[in-house]
Amino acid sequence: MIVTIIGLGLIGGSFALALKDNGLAERVIGVDTDPAHAAKALELGLVDELRPLETAIADSDLIVLAIPVNAIPLLAVKILNRVERQVVMDMGSTKEELCEVIAQHARRGRFVATHPMWGTEYSGPEAAVRGAFAGRSVVICQRELSDPDAVELVEGIYERIGMPIIEMEAEEHDLHAAYVSHISQVTSYALALTVLEKEREDEKIFALAGGGFESTVRLAKSSGEMWIPILLKNKYNVLDVLREHIHQLQIMRRMIERDDAEGLRGAIGKANSIRRIIH
Amino acid sequence: MIVTIIGLGLIGGSFALALKDNGLAERVIGVDTDPAHAAKALELGLVDELRPLETAIADSDLIVLAIPVNAIPLLAVKILNRVERQVVMDMGSTKEELCEVIAQHARRGRFVATHPMWGTEYSGPEAAVRGAFAGRSVVICQRELSDPDAVELVEGIYERIGMPIIEMEAEEHDLHAAYVSHISQVTSYALALTVLEKEREDEKIFALAGGGFESTVRLAKSSGEMWIPILLKNKYNVLDVLREHIHQLQIMRRMIERDDAEGLRGAIGKANSIRRIIH
Repeated sequence: MIVTIIGLGLIGGSFALALKDNGLAERVIGVDTDPAHAAKALELGLVDELRPLETAIADSDLIVLAIPVNAIPLLAVKILNRVERQVVMDMGSTKEELCEVIAQHARRGRFVATHPMWGTEYSGPEAAVRGAFAGRSVVICQRELSDPDAVELVEGIYERIGMPIIEMEAEEHDLHAAYVSHISQVTSYALALTVLEKEREDEKIFALAGGGFESTVRLAKSSGEMWIPILLKNKYNVLDVLREHIHQLQIMRRMIERDDAEGLRGAIGKANSIRRIIH
Repeated sequence: MIVTIIGLGLIGGSFALALKDNGLAERVIGVDTDPAHAAKALELGLVDELRPLETAIADSDLIVLAIPVNAIPLLAVKILNRVERQVVMDMGSTKEELCEVIAQHARRGRFVATHPMWGTEYSGPEAAVRGAFAGRSVVICQRELSDPDAVELVEGIYERIGMPIIEMEAEEHDLHAAYVSHISQVTSYALALTVLEKEREDEKIFALAGGGFESTVRLAKSSGEMWIPILLKNKYNVLDVLREHIHQLQIMRRMIERDDAEGLRGAIGKANSIRRIIH
Protein backbone atom coordinates (compact mmCIF):
# COMPACT_ATOMS: atom_id res chain seq x y z
CA MET A 1 0.00 0.00 0.00
CA ILE A 2 1.21 3.51 -0.80
CA VAL A 3 0.31 6.07 1.84
CA THR A 4 0.50 9.84 1.67
CA ILE A 5 0.79 11.63 4.98
CA ILE A 6 -0.03 15.31 5.04
CA GLY A 7 1.57 16.99 8.04
CA LEU A 8 4.89 15.49 9.13
CA GLY A 9 4.87 16.49 12.79
CA LEU A 10 4.40 14.57 16.02
CA ILE A 11 1.27 12.69 14.91
CA GLY A 12 1.95 12.30 11.19
CA GLY A 13 5.57 11.37 11.79
CA SER A 14 4.73 8.82 14.47
CA PHE A 15 2.00 7.34 12.27
CA ALA A 16 4.48 7.03 9.38
CA LEU A 17 6.81 5.06 11.65
CA ALA A 18 3.96 2.84 12.83
CA LEU A 19 2.92 2.08 9.25
CA LYS A 20 6.44 1.13 8.23
CA ASP A 21 7.29 -0.79 11.38
CA ASN A 22 4.14 -2.89 11.07
CA GLY A 23 4.64 -3.62 7.40
CA LEU A 24 1.48 -1.71 6.56
CA ALA A 25 2.94 0.59 3.89
CA GLU A 26 5.47 -0.19 1.19
CA ARG A 27 5.96 3.44 0.55
CA VAL A 28 5.13 6.59 2.51
CA ILE A 29 4.91 9.88 0.63
CA GLY A 30 5.25 12.99 2.75
CA VAL A 31 3.54 16.32 2.19
CA ASP A 32 4.19 19.35 4.36
CA THR A 33 3.80 23.05 3.65
CA ASP A 34 6.82 23.76 5.82
CA PRO A 35 9.90 22.90 3.71
CA ALA A 36 12.13 22.57 6.81
CA HIS A 37 9.73 20.07 8.40
CA ALA A 38 9.47 18.16 5.14
CA ALA A 39 13.25 17.97 4.71
CA LYS A 40 13.72 16.89 8.32
CA ALA A 41 11.09 14.15 7.99
CA LEU A 42 12.88 12.80 4.91
CA GLU A 43 16.25 12.99 6.63
CA LEU A 44 14.89 11.12 9.66
CA GLY A 45 13.50 8.42 7.39
CA LEU A 46 9.91 9.03 8.46
CA VAL A 47 8.88 9.20 4.79
CA ASP A 48 10.38 7.75 1.63
CA GLU A 49 9.86 10.76 -0.56
CA LEU A 50 8.42 14.25 -0.60
CA ARG A 51 5.86 15.34 -3.16
CA PRO A 52 3.44 18.14 -3.78
CA LEU A 53 -0.05 17.11 -2.70
CA GLU A 54 -1.41 17.11 -6.28
CA THR A 55 0.78 14.31 -7.60
CA ALA A 56 0.75 12.38 -4.32
CA ILE A 57 -3.00 11.81 -4.26
CA ALA A 58 -3.17 10.03 -7.59
CA ASP A 59 -0.48 7.50 -6.65
CA SER A 60 -1.75 6.69 -3.15
CA ASP A 61 -4.09 4.12 -1.68
CA LEU A 62 -4.51 6.04 1.55
CA ILE A 63 -4.21 9.74 2.28
CA VAL A 64 -3.78 10.75 5.91
CA LEU A 65 -4.49 14.23 7.27
CA ALA A 66 -2.30 14.93 10.30
CA ILE A 67 -2.44 18.71 10.35
CA PRO A 68 -3.90 21.23 12.85
CA VAL A 69 -7.66 20.82 13.19
CA ASN A 70 -8.51 24.25 11.80
CA ALA A 71 -6.99 23.21 8.47
CA ILE A 72 -8.60 19.78 8.21
CA PRO A 73 -12.19 20.41 7.01
CA LEU A 74 -11.35 22.46 3.90
CA LEU A 75 -8.44 20.28 2.90
CA ALA A 76 -10.60 17.19 3.44
CA VAL A 77 -13.14 18.55 0.95
CA LYS A 78 -10.45 19.47 -1.59
CA ILE A 79 -8.94 16.01 -1.38
CA LEU A 80 -12.31 14.27 -1.60
CA ASN A 81 -12.90 16.30 -4.78
CA ARG A 82 -9.94 14.50 -6.33
CA VAL A 83 -10.15 10.93 -5.13
CA GLU A 84 -11.83 7.95 -6.76
CA ARG A 85 -10.87 4.65 -5.17
CA GLN A 86 -8.52 6.09 -2.52
CA VAL A 87 -9.31 6.21 1.17
CA VAL A 88 -8.85 9.46 3.09
CA MET A 89 -8.60 9.69 6.87
CA ASP A 90 -7.80 12.36 9.44
CA MET A 91 -6.26 12.11 12.91
CA GLY A 92 -7.57 15.37 14.39
CA SER A 93 -8.67 16.07 17.97
CA THR A 94 -12.04 17.64 17.10
CA LYS A 95 -14.62 16.01 14.89
CA GLU A 96 -17.91 17.90 14.83
CA GLU A 97 -17.11 20.58 12.24
CA LEU A 98 -15.20 18.19 10.01
CA CYS A 99 -18.07 15.69 9.94
CA GLU A 100 -20.55 18.46 9.23
CA VAL A 101 -18.49 19.89 6.38
CA ILE A 102 -17.98 16.61 4.55
CA ALA A 103 -21.44 15.16 5.36
CA GLN A 104 -23.00 15.84 1.97
CA HIS A 105 -19.91 15.37 -0.17
CA ALA A 106 -20.48 13.00 -3.09
CA ARG A 107 -17.40 11.00 -2.00
CA ARG A 108 -18.13 11.08 1.77
CA GLY A 109 -17.84 7.30 1.78
CA ARG A 110 -14.13 7.46 1.01
CA PHE A 111 -13.44 9.38 4.25
CA VAL A 112 -12.89 7.89 7.70
CA ALA A 113 -12.89 10.38 10.59
CA THR A 114 -10.58 9.20 13.37
CA HIS A 115 -8.90 10.44 16.53
CA PRO A 116 -6.15 8.31 18.04
CA MET A 117 -5.91 9.21 21.75
CA TRP A 118 -2.18 9.64 21.88
CA GLY A 119 0.19 12.58 21.96
CA THR A 120 3.13 14.11 23.75
CA GLU A 121 4.05 17.67 24.63
CA TYR A 122 6.55 17.82 21.77
CA SER A 123 6.00 18.75 18.15
CA GLY A 124 7.58 18.60 14.72
CA PRO A 125 9.16 15.65 12.89
CA GLU A 126 11.87 15.24 15.55
CA ALA A 127 9.09 14.52 18.05
CA ALA A 128 7.93 11.43 16.12
CA VAL A 129 8.01 8.37 18.34
CA ARG A 130 8.53 4.76 17.35
CA GLY A 131 5.86 2.50 18.87
CA ALA A 132 3.49 5.40 19.57
CA PHE A 133 -0.27 4.76 19.70
CA ALA A 134 0.00 1.11 20.85
CA GLY A 135 -2.37 0.37 23.71
CA ARG A 136 -4.25 3.66 23.44
CA SER A 137 -7.78 3.91 22.07
CA VAL A 138 -8.82 5.39 18.76
CA VAL A 139 -12.21 6.97 18.17
CA ILE A 140 -13.95 6.60 14.81
CA CYS A 141 -16.83 8.99 14.16
CA GLN A 142 -19.74 8.52 11.76
CA ARG A 143 -18.43 5.13 10.85
CA GLU A 144 -21.71 4.35 9.10
CA LEU A 145 -21.09 7.13 6.55
CA SER A 146 -17.79 5.63 5.43
CA ASP A 147 -17.69 2.92 2.76
CA PRO A 148 -17.20 -0.56 4.22
CA ASP A 149 -13.87 -1.05 2.41
CA ALA A 150 -12.60 2.30 3.71
CA VAL A 151 -13.57 1.42 7.28
CA GLU A 152 -11.99 -2.00 6.90
CA LEU A 153 -8.71 -0.52 5.68
CA VAL A 154 -8.46 2.09 8.43
CA GLU A 155 -9.61 -0.18 11.25
CA GLY A 156 -7.22 -2.84 10.03
CA ILE A 157 -4.34 -0.38 10.39
CA TYR A 158 -5.36 0.71 13.89
CA GLU A 159 -5.85 -2.88 15.00
CA ARG A 160 -2.45 -3.84 13.69
CA ILE A 161 -0.89 -0.92 15.56
CA GLY A 162 -2.58 -2.18 18.71
CA MET A 163 -5.32 0.41 19.24
CA PRO A 164 -8.76 -0.58 20.58
CA ILE A 165 -11.43 1.07 18.42
CA ILE A 166 -14.33 3.06 19.88
CA GLU A 167 -17.25 4.23 17.79
CA MET A 168 -18.74 7.54 18.75
CA GLU A 169 -20.87 10.34 17.38
CA ALA A 170 -18.86 13.45 16.46
CA GLU A 171 -20.67 15.66 19.01
CA GLU A 172 -20.17 13.06 21.71
CA HIS A 173 -16.50 12.75 20.83
CA ASP A 174 -15.90 16.49 21.09
CA LEU A 175 -17.62 16.66 24.48
CA HIS A 176 -15.64 13.77 25.95
CA ALA A 177 -12.41 15.03 24.41
CA ALA A 178 -12.93 18.37 26.17
CA TYR A 179 -13.06 16.51 29.49
CA VAL A 180 -10.30 14.00 29.12
CA SER A 181 -7.85 15.91 26.98
CA HIS A 182 -8.48 19.57 26.18
CA ILE A 183 -9.06 20.71 29.76
CA SER A 184 -5.80 19.16 30.95
CA GLN A 185 -4.07 21.25 28.35
CA VAL A 186 -5.66 24.50 29.51
CA THR A 187 -4.96 23.87 33.20
CA SER A 188 -1.40 22.94 32.44
CA TYR A 189 -0.79 26.16 30.49
CA ALA A 190 -2.43 28.16 33.27
CA LEU A 191 -0.35 26.41 35.91
CA ALA A 192 2.86 27.18 34.04
CA LEU A 193 1.81 30.82 33.70
CA THR A 194 0.99 30.97 37.41
CA VAL A 195 4.41 29.73 38.39
CA LEU A 196 6.27 31.84 35.84
CA GLU A 197 4.28 34.89 36.88
CA LYS A 198 5.16 34.60 40.54
CA GLU A 199 8.40 32.72 40.66
CA ARG A 200 11.15 34.86 39.29
CA GLU A 201 13.86 32.64 40.62
CA ASP A 202 14.01 29.95 37.97
CA GLU A 203 16.79 28.12 39.67
CA LYS A 204 14.78 27.55 42.80
CA ILE A 205 11.81 26.18 40.87
CA PHE A 206 14.10 23.91 38.95
CA ALA A 207 15.73 22.58 42.07
CA LEU A 208 12.49 22.05 43.94
CA ALA A 209 10.17 20.87 41.20
CA GLY A 210 9.38 17.27 42.06
CA GLY A 211 7.55 14.64 40.10
CA GLY A 212 4.12 16.05 40.88
CA PHE A 213 4.89 19.44 39.41
CA GLU A 214 6.49 17.95 36.35
CA SER A 215 3.58 15.72 35.58
CA THR A 216 0.96 18.46 35.93
CA VAL A 217 2.96 21.09 34.05
CA ARG A 218 4.49 18.87 31.38
CA LEU A 219 1.69 19.57 28.90
CA ALA A 220 2.43 23.30 29.09
CA LYS A 221 5.34 22.62 26.77
CA SER A 222 2.88 21.72 23.99
CA SER A 223 2.78 23.78 20.83
CA GLY A 224 0.14 26.48 20.44
CA GLU A 225 0.06 25.81 16.71
CA MET A 226 -1.59 22.48 17.40
CA TRP A 227 -3.61 23.40 20.49
CA ILE A 228 -5.09 26.83 19.73
CA PRO A 229 -7.15 25.44 16.84
CA ILE A 230 -8.36 22.58 19.03
CA LEU A 231 -9.42 24.90 21.86
CA LEU A 232 -11.20 27.24 19.47
CA LYS A 233 -12.85 24.53 17.36
CA ASN A 234 -14.12 22.86 20.51
CA LYS A 235 -14.86 26.19 22.11
CA TYR A 236 -18.27 25.54 23.69
CA ASN A 237 -17.35 22.23 25.25
CA VAL A 238 -14.01 23.58 26.46
CA LEU A 239 -15.67 26.65 28.00
CA ASP A 240 -18.20 24.45 29.72
CA VAL A 241 -15.56 22.25 31.30
CA LEU A 242 -13.40 25.24 32.14
CA ARG A 243 -16.31 26.91 33.95
CA GLU A 244 -16.87 23.77 36.03
CA HIS A 245 -13.15 23.45 36.74
CA ILE A 246 -12.85 27.05 37.95
CA HIS A 247 -15.93 26.44 40.09
CA GLN A 248 -14.31 23.39 41.69
CA LEU A 249 -11.12 25.37 42.35
CA GLN A 250 -13.16 28.12 43.99
CA ILE A 251 -14.90 25.60 46.24
CA MET A 252 -11.53 24.21 47.34
CA ARG A 253 -10.22 27.74 47.83
CA ARG A 254 -13.10 28.61 50.15
CA MET A 255 -12.58 25.42 52.14
CA ILE A 256 -8.90 26.22 52.63
CA GLU A 257 -9.75 29.82 53.59
CA ARG A 258 -12.14 28.56 56.26
CA ASP A 259 -9.87 25.78 57.51
CA ASP A 260 -12.68 23.45 56.56
CA ALA A 261 -10.84 20.14 56.95
CA GLU A 262 -14.12 18.25 56.94
CA GLY A 263 -15.16 19.76 53.62
CA LEU A 264 -11.74 19.07 52.14
CA ARG A 265 -11.94 15.50 53.33
CA GLY A 266 -15.23 15.09 51.48
CA ALA A 267 -13.95 16.72 48.29
CA ILE A 268 -10.65 14.86 48.27
CA GLY A 269 -12.39 11.58 49.07
CA LYS A 270 -14.57 12.13 46.03
CA ALA A 271 -11.60 13.15 43.87
CA ASN A 272 -9.82 9.97 44.97
CA SER A 273 -12.46 7.94 43.20
CA ILE A 274 -10.68 8.86 39.96
CA ARG A 275 -8.70 5.73 40.93
CA ARG A 276 -11.59 3.81 39.36
CA ILE A 277 -10.70 5.37 36.04
CA ILE A 278 -6.95 5.74 35.93
CA HIS A 279 -4.73 3.13 37.45
CA MET B 1 23.44 3.44 63.55
CA ILE B 2 20.03 2.69 65.00
CA VAL B 3 17.23 4.72 63.50
CA THR B 4 13.67 5.14 64.69
CA ILE B 5 11.16 6.11 62.04
CA ILE B 6 7.86 7.54 63.23
CA GLY B 7 5.19 7.15 60.55
CA LEU B 8 5.56 4.08 58.36
CA GLY B 9 3.79 5.28 55.24
CA LEU B 10 4.95 6.31 51.79
CA ILE B 11 7.74 8.62 52.99
CA GLY B 12 8.80 6.87 56.19
CA GLY B 13 8.67 3.45 54.55
CA SER B 14 10.66 4.56 51.51
CA PHE B 15 13.21 6.26 53.76
CA ALA B 16 13.58 3.07 55.80
CA LEU B 17 14.35 1.15 52.61
CA ALA B 18 16.86 3.80 51.52
CA LEU B 19 18.65 3.63 54.88
CA LYS B 20 18.94 -0.15 54.77
CA ASP B 21 19.83 -0.39 51.08
CA ASN B 22 22.62 2.14 51.49
CA GLY B 23 24.01 0.49 54.59
CA LEU B 24 23.20 3.59 56.63
CA ALA B 25 21.29 1.85 59.43
CA GLU B 26 22.03 -1.43 61.15
CA ARG B 27 18.62 -1.45 62.68
CA VAL B 28 15.41 0.43 61.95
CA ILE B 29 12.80 0.68 64.68
CA GLY B 30 9.29 1.48 63.51
CA VAL B 31 6.70 3.54 65.36
CA ASP B 32 3.18 4.05 64.05
CA THR B 33 -0.06 4.87 65.86
CA ASP B 34 -1.95 2.75 63.34
CA PRO B 35 -1.41 -0.90 64.38
CA ALA B 36 -2.34 -2.19 60.91
CA HIS B 37 0.23 0.08 59.25
CA ALA B 38 2.84 -0.91 61.80
CA ALA B 39 2.21 -4.64 61.29
CA LYS B 40 2.29 -4.25 57.53
CA ALA B 41 5.58 -2.34 57.64
CA LEU B 42 7.12 -5.11 59.71
CA GLU B 43 5.74 -7.79 57.41
CA LEU B 44 7.14 -5.98 54.37
CA GLY B 45 10.53 -5.77 56.03
CA LEU B 46 10.58 -1.98 56.01
CA VAL B 47 11.51 -2.02 59.70
CA ASP B 48 13.27 -4.56 61.90
CA GLU B 49 11.04 -4.17 64.93
CA LEU B 50 8.11 -2.22 66.28
CA ARG B 51 8.29 -0.32 69.55
CA PRO B 52 6.39 2.29 71.48
CA LEU B 53 7.96 5.70 70.96
CA GLU B 54 9.12 5.99 74.58
CA THR B 55 11.53 3.07 74.53
CA ALA B 56 12.59 3.67 70.94
CA ILE B 57 14.04 7.14 71.55
CA ALA B 58 16.52 6.07 74.18
CA ASP B 59 18.04 3.36 71.98
CA SER B 60 18.30 5.39 68.79
CA ASP B 61 20.96 7.55 67.20
CA LEU B 62 18.51 9.18 64.84
CA ILE B 63 14.76 9.76 65.15
CA VAL B 64 12.87 10.54 61.95
CA LEU B 65 9.46 12.18 61.84
CA ALA B 66 7.58 11.08 58.73
CA ILE B 67 4.02 11.88 59.79
CA PRO B 68 1.43 14.38 58.51
CA VAL B 69 2.65 17.97 58.92
CA ASN B 70 -0.05 18.97 61.39
CA ALA B 71 1.33 16.42 63.87
CA ILE B 72 5.01 17.29 63.47
CA PRO B 73 5.55 20.45 65.58
CA LEU B 74 4.14 19.14 68.86
CA LEU B 75 5.73 15.74 68.53
CA ALA B 76 9.03 17.39 67.63
CA VAL B 77 8.94 19.32 70.90
CA LYS B 78 8.01 16.23 72.91
CA ILE B 79 10.86 14.28 71.39
CA LEU B 80 13.37 17.10 71.85
CA ASN B 81 12.34 17.12 75.52
CA ARG B 82 13.68 13.59 75.78
CA VAL B 83 16.82 13.50 73.72
CA GLU B 84 20.40 14.12 74.74
CA ARG B 85 22.92 13.09 72.13
CA GLN B 86 20.36 11.86 69.54
CA VAL B 87 19.59 13.64 66.31
CA VAL B 88 15.96 14.31 65.34
CA MET B 89 14.82 15.17 61.84
CA ASP B 90 11.51 15.59 60.02
CA MET B 91 10.57 15.07 56.39
CA GLY B 92 7.47 17.28 56.22
CA SER B 93 6.25 19.44 53.33
CA THR B 94 5.81 22.64 55.36
CA LYS B 95 8.47 24.18 57.53
CA GLU B 96 7.48 27.59 58.86
CA GLU B 97 5.38 26.58 61.85
CA LEU B 98 7.69 23.74 62.83
CA CYS B 99 10.75 26.00 62.82
CA GLU B 100 8.89 28.62 64.82
CA VAL B 101 7.72 26.12 67.43
CA ILE B 102 11.14 24.58 68.07
CA ALA B 103 13.14 27.82 67.69
CA GLN B 104 13.67 28.46 71.39
CA HIS B 105 13.85 24.88 72.56
CA ALA B 106 16.89 24.17 74.71
CA ARG B 107 17.77 21.26 72.42
CA ARG B 108 17.01 23.00 69.12
CA GLY B 109 20.48 22.05 67.95
CA ARG B 110 19.60 18.36 67.90
CA PHE B 111 16.89 18.95 65.28
CA VAL B 112 17.37 19.13 61.50
CA ALA B 113 14.35 20.36 59.52
CA THR B 114 14.27 18.77 56.07
CA HIS B 115 11.96 18.30 53.13
CA PRO B 116 12.95 15.76 50.50
CA MET B 117 11.19 16.71 47.23
CA TRP B 118 9.84 13.31 46.40
CA GLY B 119 6.48 11.60 46.62
CA THR B 120 3.93 9.60 44.73
CA GLU B 121 0.14 9.59 44.71
CA TYR B 122 0.04 6.44 46.86
CA SER B 123 0.14 6.11 50.63
CA GLY B 124 0.68 3.63 53.43
CA PRO B 125 3.51 1.13 53.94
CA GLU B 126 2.63 -0.76 50.74
CA ALA B 127 3.41 2.44 48.83
CA ALA B 128 7.03 2.47 49.99
CA VAL B 129 9.39 2.49 47.04
CA ARG B 130 12.90 1.11 46.84
CA GLY B 131 15.32 3.65 45.37
CA ALA B 132 13.00 6.59 46.06
CA PHE B 133 14.50 10.06 46.61
CA ALA B 134 17.60 9.50 44.45
CA GLY B 135 18.21 12.39 42.09
CA ARG B 136 15.63 14.67 43.72
CA SER B 137 16.55 17.66 45.83
CA VAL B 138 16.16 17.96 49.58
CA VAL B 139 15.64 21.27 51.35
CA ILE B 140 17.19 21.90 54.75
CA CYS B 141 15.80 24.85 56.70
CA GLN B 142 17.50 26.85 59.44
CA ARG B 143 20.61 24.76 59.04
CA GLU B 144 22.52 27.25 61.18
CA LEU B 145 20.34 26.43 64.20
CA SER B 146 21.22 22.74 64.09
CA ASP B 147 24.36 21.42 65.77
CA PRO B 148 27.19 20.76 63.29
CA ASP B 149 27.25 17.03 64.10
CA ALA B 150 23.48 16.78 63.57
CA VAL B 151 23.74 18.54 60.20
CA GLU B 152 26.66 16.34 59.24
CA LEU B 153 24.74 13.17 60.05
CA VAL B 154 21.59 14.16 58.18
CA GLU B 155 23.36 15.64 55.17
CA GLY B 156 25.57 12.58 54.99
CA ILE B 157 22.47 10.40 54.73
CA TYR B 158 20.87 12.51 52.01
CA GLU B 159 24.12 12.68 50.06
CA ARG B 160 24.52 8.93 50.24
CA ILE B 161 20.96 8.48 48.99
CA GLY B 162 21.81 10.76 46.08
CA MET B 163 19.91 13.93 46.91
CA PRO B 164 21.36 17.38 46.17
CA ILE B 165 20.95 19.57 49.26
CA ILE B 166 19.45 23.07 49.11
CA GLU B 167 19.54 25.46 52.04
CA MET B 168 16.55 27.70 52.44
CA GLU B 169 14.73 29.83 54.99
CA ALA B 170 11.55 28.21 56.29
CA GLU B 171 9.31 31.00 54.95
CA GLU B 172 11.01 30.85 51.58
CA HIS B 173 10.61 27.07 51.49
CA ASP B 174 6.89 27.22 52.17
CA LEU B 175 6.35 29.83 49.47
CA HIS B 176 8.26 27.88 46.83
CA ALA B 177 6.65 24.61 47.89
CA ALA B 178 3.22 26.17 47.35
CA TYR B 179 4.23 26.92 43.75
CA VAL B 180 6.01 23.78 42.75
CA SER B 181 4.12 21.20 44.73
CA HIS B 182 1.01 22.19 46.68
CA ILE B 183 -0.76 23.96 43.81
CA SER B 184 -0.37 20.94 41.51
CA GLN B 185 -2.16 18.93 44.14
CA VAL B 186 -5.10 21.32 44.35
CA THR B 187 -5.53 21.59 40.58
CA SER B 188 -5.33 17.85 40.20
CA TYR B 189 -8.06 17.28 42.80
CA ALA B 190 -10.21 19.96 41.16
CA LEU B 191 -9.66 18.44 37.73
CA ALA B 192 -10.72 15.02 38.94
CA LEU B 193 -13.84 16.52 40.54
CA THR B 194 -14.62 18.39 37.32
CA VAL B 195 -14.49 15.24 35.26
CA LEU B 196 -16.35 13.13 37.81
CA GLU B 197 -19.00 15.84 38.17
CA LYS B 198 -19.76 16.03 34.46
CA GLU B 199 -18.80 12.69 33.06
CA ARG B 200 -21.18 10.06 34.30
CA GLU B 201 -19.99 7.50 31.81
CA ASP B 202 -16.87 6.16 33.48
CA GLU B 203 -16.21 3.70 30.72
CA LYS B 204 -15.95 6.41 28.11
CA ILE B 205 -13.51 8.42 30.21
CA PHE B 206 -11.47 5.35 30.82
CA ALA B 207 -11.35 4.44 27.15
CA LEU B 208 -10.49 7.95 26.02
CA ALA B 209 -8.20 9.14 28.77
CA GLY B 210 -4.80 9.51 27.15
CA GLY B 211 -1.44 10.23 28.65
CA GLY B 212 -2.11 13.93 29.10
CA PHE B 213 -5.15 13.34 31.27
CA GLU B 214 -3.42 10.70 33.31
CA SER B 215 -0.44 12.85 34.07
CA THR B 216 -2.48 15.88 35.13
CA VAL B 217 -5.01 13.90 37.17
CA ARG B 218 -2.67 11.31 38.67
CA LEU B 219 -2.08 13.38 41.82
CA ALA B 220 -5.82 13.36 42.55
CA LYS B 221 -5.35 9.84 43.84
CA SER B 222 -3.27 11.22 46.73
CA SER B 223 -4.48 10.77 50.28
CA GLY B 224 -6.28 13.60 52.03
CA GLU B 225 -4.76 12.53 55.32
CA MET B 226 -1.38 13.70 54.10
CA TRP B 227 -2.47 16.64 51.97
CA ILE B 228 -5.17 18.40 53.99
CA PRO B 229 -2.68 19.30 56.76
CA ILE B 230 -0.21 20.56 54.15
CA LEU B 231 -2.79 22.76 52.42
CA LEU B 232 -4.01 24.16 55.75
CA LYS B 233 -0.58 24.65 57.29
CA ASN B 234 0.58 26.47 54.17
CA LYS B 235 -2.76 28.20 53.81
CA TYR B 236 -1.69 31.74 52.93
CA ASN B 237 0.84 30.75 50.33
CA VAL B 238 -1.50 28.17 48.84
CA LEU B 239 -4.37 30.69 48.67
CA ASP B 240 -2.08 33.19 47.02
CA VAL B 241 -1.01 30.78 44.32
CA LEU B 242 -4.55 29.50 43.90
CA ARG B 243 -5.83 33.03 43.38
CA GLU B 244 -3.22 33.63 40.68
CA HIS B 245 -3.98 30.26 39.06
CA ILE B 246 -7.73 30.95 38.89
CA HIS B 247 -6.91 34.36 37.44
CA GLN B 248 -4.79 32.77 34.72
CA LEU B 249 -7.57 30.30 33.92
CA GLN B 250 -10.07 33.15 33.66
CA ILE B 251 -7.79 35.00 31.25
CA MET B 252 -7.55 31.92 29.05
CA ARG B 253 -11.30 31.42 29.28
CA ARG B 254 -11.95 34.94 28.05
CA MET B 255 -9.52 34.49 25.17
CA ILE B 256 -11.27 31.30 24.08
CA GLU B 257 -14.69 32.99 24.40
CA ARG B 258 -13.53 35.80 22.12
CA ASP B 259 -11.74 33.53 19.64
CA ASP B 260 -8.65 35.52 20.52
CA ALA B 261 -6.07 33.31 18.78
CA GLU B 262 -3.49 36.08 19.01
CA GLY B 263 -3.90 36.36 22.76
CA LEU B 264 -3.74 32.60 23.16
CA ARG B 265 -0.59 32.53 21.07
CA GLY B 266 1.01 35.01 23.45
CA ALA B 267 -0.11 33.18 26.58
CA ILE B 268 0.87 29.74 25.31
CA GLY B 269 4.18 31.04 24.01
CA LYS B 270 4.88 32.32 27.50
CA ALA B 271 3.71 29.08 29.13
CA ASN B 272 6.03 27.18 26.77
CA SER B 273 8.98 28.82 28.45
CA ILE B 274 8.44 26.37 31.32
CA ARG B 275 10.68 24.25 29.06
CA ARG B 276 13.55 26.19 30.60
CA ILE B 277 12.63 24.71 33.95
CA ILE B 278 11.40 21.18 33.32
CA HIS B 279 13.02 19.11 30.65
